[in-house]
Amino acid sequence: MGNPNLEAAFYQGIQVLRMRVITKYLSLHSRGETDVVDITGSVESAIGETEFRDGIVTVFVPGSTGALTTIEYEPGLLRDFPAMLEKVVPKNFDYRHGSNGHSHVRASIIGPSITIPFKDTRLTLGTWQQLVFVELDTRPRSRDLVLQIIGE
Amino acid sequence: MGNPNLEAAFYQGIQVLRMRVITKYLSLHSRGETDVVDITGSVESAIGETEFRDGIVTVFVPGSTGALTTIEYEPGLLRDFPAMLEKVVPKNFDYRHGSNGHSHVRASIIGPSITIPFKDTRLTLGTWQQLVFVELDTRPRSRDLVLQIIGE
Amino acid sequence: MGNPNLEAAFYQGIQVLRMRVITKYLSLHSRGETDVVDITGSVESAIGETEFRDGIVTVFVPGSTGALTTIEYEPGLLRDFPAMLEKVVPKNFDYRHGSNGHSHVRASIIGPSITIPFKDTRLTLGTWQQLVFVELDTRPRSRDLVLQIIGE
Repeated sequence: MGNPNLEAAFYQGIQVLRMRVITKYLSLHSRGETDVVDITGSVESAIGETEFRDGIVTVFVPGSTGALTTIEYEPGLLRDFPAMLEKVVPKNFDYRHGSNGHSHVRASIIGPSITIPFKDTRLTLGTWQQLVFVELDTRPRSRDLVLQIIGE
Repeated sequence: MGNPNLEAAFYQGIQVLRMRVITKYLSLHSRGETDVVDITGSVESAIGETEFRDGIVTVFVPGSTGALTTIEYEPGLLRDFPAMLEKVVPKNFDYRHGSNGHSHVRASIIGPSITIPFKDTRLTLGTWQQLVFVELDTRPRSRDLVLQIIGE
Repeated sequence: MGNPNLEAAFYQGIQVLRMRVITKYLSLHSRGETDVVDITGSVESAIGETEFRDGIVTVFVPGSTGALTTIEYEPGLLRDFPAMLEKVVPKNFDYRHGSNGHSHVRASIIGPSITIPFKDTRLTLGTWQQLVFVELDTRPRSRDLVLQIIGE
């Protein structure tokens, strides 16, 4: 704009006001098939590292044998959810894919992505609702989830 | 920037142009288990209250016994969908969680979040496709859904 | 702002810096029931047509008998996934909706929307993970998916 002071103020103003996208990664180690990992605290920490107050976070699993959802994270449901997955999409079936065909089908049905609003830096979860990664593969895995955070 | 008029114009310009996030809430009362509530009109009204033309809305259920999806909202499917949920994740099963274990499992599979584009202030739904909240708990509930609207 | 040069620079600066939303459409023809269509390349091409480097894309099916998810796109799973859908939500059942009641229920469970992060113009998919449209209706259909791309 010609005037260096004005230009600096201009870009500073933009930085303060504008919405942005910030990418974070969340590494975890699952303990094996149908391990349900509570990632609520880690995702809120990642949001806290940005300067955003309000926005959305899209959590995504790169990989086709894991899924994201929410659940009340308590021992009863941590047994019920895997037991029901075995009933809905059983391991024993004539899969063409091989030994973990059920893992893939379960992951495609539950889904690899979840988008959750945050307000005043906190996820808008209910009191008894946690954000979880569900390991659907047949062995322990290392996972690097993508957190795409869009906010202001 | 030193010049008050210029500064005012600057911030006004930003306000007009920039993307923003706006949070709205949608309160509803479900009538009981597997009540399917059409929230299409309410969500479009909330978008209409913003100045956005194009963007996305993330609708989220704070709570672990409700879900969001789309369906053709007609009497046949309003019977078929609950009937199939009972087949897929039946109520009678040895749940550890207690009397509404099936509610939680169904909610985790369908999912607590849906993100839908809007264009020219309208959701991009098909003609026979409605956005719905599905009550999966075993009793009528009051729900406060979060609408995180990002647009320009 | 009074000064035309300054005003032009101001708007140009905003254009460069700000996040935006861009709507694209993806037309496809499905070959019939449970056709699984790999749309990864088309969605990445659409992102490439924008000037965005980082952001999210929400892919949405206008219509209540199609769904979006990810899967390892290989012949075995392209048989396993439909076979399991038939087991989970069978075609033969006393549907009130008529001949494609199962199509609707399957679509509502899998979901009509998926949001995926992109980074440096690439979707953050795993190596053996493809973004797919799943035709759940009982006949070949033409579909116009909505891609709402938000980025910077």
